[in-house]
Amino acid sequence: MNQIIFVAGGAGFVGANLVPRLLEEGAVVVVADNFCRGLRDALPHHERLHVIEADLADRAATAQAFEQAAALGPLKEVWHLAANSDIPAGVEDSDVDFKDTFRTTFELLRAMRAHGVKHFHFASSSAVYGDLGNQPLHEGLGPLLPISNYGAMKLASEAQASAAAESFLERVNLFRFPNVVGVPATHGVILDFINKLARTPDNLVVLGDGTQQKAYLHVSDLVNAMLMVRARNDSRKVELVNIGPTDEGITVRRIAEMVVARVAPTATLSFGQGNKGWVGDVPKFTYLTDKMQAYGWQPSVSSAGAVERAIDEIARQQGH
Amino acid sequence: MNQIIFVAGGAGFVGANLVPRLLEEGAVVVVADNFCRGLRDALPHHERLHVIEADLADRAATAQAFEQAAALGPLKEVWHLAANSDIPAGVEDSDVDFKDTFRTTFELLRAMRAHGVKHFHFASSSAVYGDLGNQPLHEGLGPLLPISNYGAMKLASEAQASAAAESFLERVNLFRFPNVVGVPATHGVILDFINKLARTPDNLVVLGDGTQQKAYLHVSDLVNAMLMVRARNDSRKVELVNIGPTDEGITVRRIAEMVVARVAPTATLSFGQGNKGWVGDVPKFTYLTDKMQAYGWQPSVSSAGAVERAIDEIARQQGH
Repeated sequence: MNQIIFVAGGAGFVGANLVPRLLEEGAVVVVADNFCRGLRDALPHHERLHVIEADLADRAATAQAFEQAAALGPLKEVWHLAANSDIPAGVEDSDVDFKDTFRTTFELLRAMRAHGVKHFHFASSSAVYGDLGNQPLHEGLGPLLPISNYGAMKLASEAQASAAAESFLERVNLFRFPNVVGVPATHGVILDFINKLARTPDNLVVLGDGTQQKAYLHVSDLVNAMLMVRARNDSRKVELVNIGPTDEGITVRRIAEMVVARVAPTATLSFGQGNKGWVGDVPKFTYLTDKMQAYGWQPSVSSAGAVERAIDEIARQQGH
Repeated sequence: MNQIIFVAGGAGFVGANLVPRLLEEGAVVVVADNFCRGLRDALPHHERLHVIEADLADRAATAQAFEQAAALGPLKEVWHLAANSDIPAGVEDSDVDFKDTFRTTFELLRAMRAHGVKHFHFASSSAVYGDLGNQPLHEGLGPLLPISNYGAMKLASEAQASAAAESFLERVNLFRFPNVVGVPATHGVILDFINKLARTPDNLVVLGDGTQQKAYLHVSDLVNAMLMVRARNDSRKVELVNIGPTDEGITVRRIAEMVVARVAPTATLSFGQGNKGWVGDVPKFTYLTDKMQAYGWQPSVSSAGAVERAIDEIARQQGH
């Protein structure tokens, strides 16, 4: 009997890239998504793929989704990719990240305990580090003082999964994502810029002064990294890794220029003030990924290369 | 008009020691407690002290408690000392720490935002560090992988307070408590031993092999440390400090011997196996408190001295 893999938030951007890889392995995949941002069409139609609409912040709905999954065969692992992805909305109302970013983790872990599911893979975030200035971010850094509710609830999720590893899980992988780009794009700076240019093709207004510099990873490299860590055969219950490019990132100004060059070459650029786009935005950070590299992983492209590739992919997605 | 200080969980062990100090400053103090462990009699009767029974994990109850406090005058600061303090109960059912340790933080911060209260002092815990073996615990350590739901929800609370500092708080102090001893004791190893000896005066059975070594602080030193950090006049919004003794701690075996010597000198000692008393118990850790010492703070007694003093205090409390 095929083993069942449960992917929470699996119809979102990362899920749409991960799920086909899991299907290639021969697994039966159950995607549960609230379709707040996820799209059914982002996923392939496949006889081994089952898609459930469920709000995983809700205990009864999560229990029901697990019952449905368990009816298909032995539940082997849970990937948790569900979260609020609108950081400013989460800063405005703390309930947003409490529910969509943390409560989902909390309820998934409870359901896993009830069903005896032992493997948990979690999409955490560089946002857990907060704003540490120019200090390169490695996994051994503390204290972790996130500056957004999103980052706070990702850190809370890591912590709850870690405690679960002590009491009932066998294997927990915590992946601290950088900014990830690619398709199907549902949000993010590139899509925002392309959408803005669709409305005002002559001018692109950028929040902040454009000097914000961030590391970007292409989603294909992210999925490769996660699958590589998942395949580890050491005995540690909990692994926690930064996943990201090895370069220092790319500025928002450069991204804006590249988007303009691809979709509206005659448009001018306007910048705001300050190097934070919004409350909770971390202006610049450098990610250390030595742990990931020790797995033999390397990103196939740099931050600039990932952004360039994603701009082309998202431009096509948006009909350019 | 006097400024109002709100103390969540203020009828518990630490609150009972903190509140008299706040009253000495001339403040009006509002204690809100669910009286799950807190006791009204632990607090003095004082014309500037108001005690409210409220479950601060509940949004409506928290809002009502803040309304009552705000009716007395301008709400200046919130001390958050409320939490589940039964770690094994929290490991058994994750809802316990979710509600009592984290949700209380979450709802207090929402109420503070609504009322424009800008200063938050939080009782965090060494449990956020998880089990890092013999590595001395300093504030710059990561990753933080707690091994109990209690530690996880304390870390989640730190994170949520940190995010709140970015958006609406002016001053956040996060205190990572060690094991704290003193009276009024409501729980903890010393009270457990004294209660066990009251039932079986001939023999004291200790969970684990007694080699667990932990740092202990007397509650009076803890309160001094917190008030010293609260008085800081630097401009940083968030401060996070370990509070603890400067020694390497004391073993459970030594505590058991000292308790027996004080209350049942003829009793024998029996030990279990393993160096963890329960799931989620951290067997041994050494706390670094350089940051606290830079404030000019020093504990007045060592771990052994704190335990000795507390054994006498708790023995008296229990009628010995």
